[in-house]
Amino acid sequence: MAKTPKPPYYAVIFSSYRNPGDDEGYGAMADRMVELAAQQPGFMGVESVRDGLGITVSYWESLDSIKAWKRHAEHREAQRLGHEKWYSSFKVRIAKVERDYGI
Amino acid sequence: MAKTPKPPYYAVIFSSYRNPGDDEGYGAMADRMVELAAQQPGFMGVESVRDGLGITVSYWESLDSIKAWKRHAEHREAQRLGHEKWYSSFKVRIAKVERDYGI
Repeated sequence: MAKTPKPPYYAVIFSSYRNPGDDEGYGAMADRMVELAAQQPGFMGVESVRDGLGITVSYWESLDSIKAWKRHAEHREAQRLGHEKWYSSFKVRIAKVERDYGI
Repeated sequence: MAKTPKPPYYAVIFSSYRNPGDDEGYGAMADRMVELAAQQPGFMGVESVRDGLGITVSYWESLDSIKAWKRHAEHREAQRLGHEKWYSSFKVRIAKVERDYGI
């Protein structure tokens, strides 16, 4: 579970369904994107799970850090492949976390 | 995938790890909570997946609709059982969705 600081901070909720096939290329790229995201300024954590539907939530310090990550060259290439090949559908939601609690 | 309207709207991101055992009681309650949530004023959709880590994101019209659902008697009982028995850890994040896109 991502260890995020006290709100406010931002969440990018990425929900997707995959096309069948090409698991190796996809898996390697998905792992690489998590590794690369974690190196970006403003990154604060990620939670990801897939079982048919995939949900990945990444946490960021600011909208600017999200925008910079979206424009990252290697990430753009991944987005292109995702759009053209890997995902049958996806939705990205950018949200400001106002409150959190838990155990 | 949840069919949500144009932002702004709200997301409740619920991330959790379960304690082992009691799958039947848990599964029935989890299904019931989705069914019940869908009947609440302001509910706009839900996406849920578990594979070890569980992530459930529900979408709501307003903070008031989220608060009302949190106070619902049957949901309170589920929250109590979740806290005491089902989850080894969980985190709830309440976030305002400012932007979304997808295919």
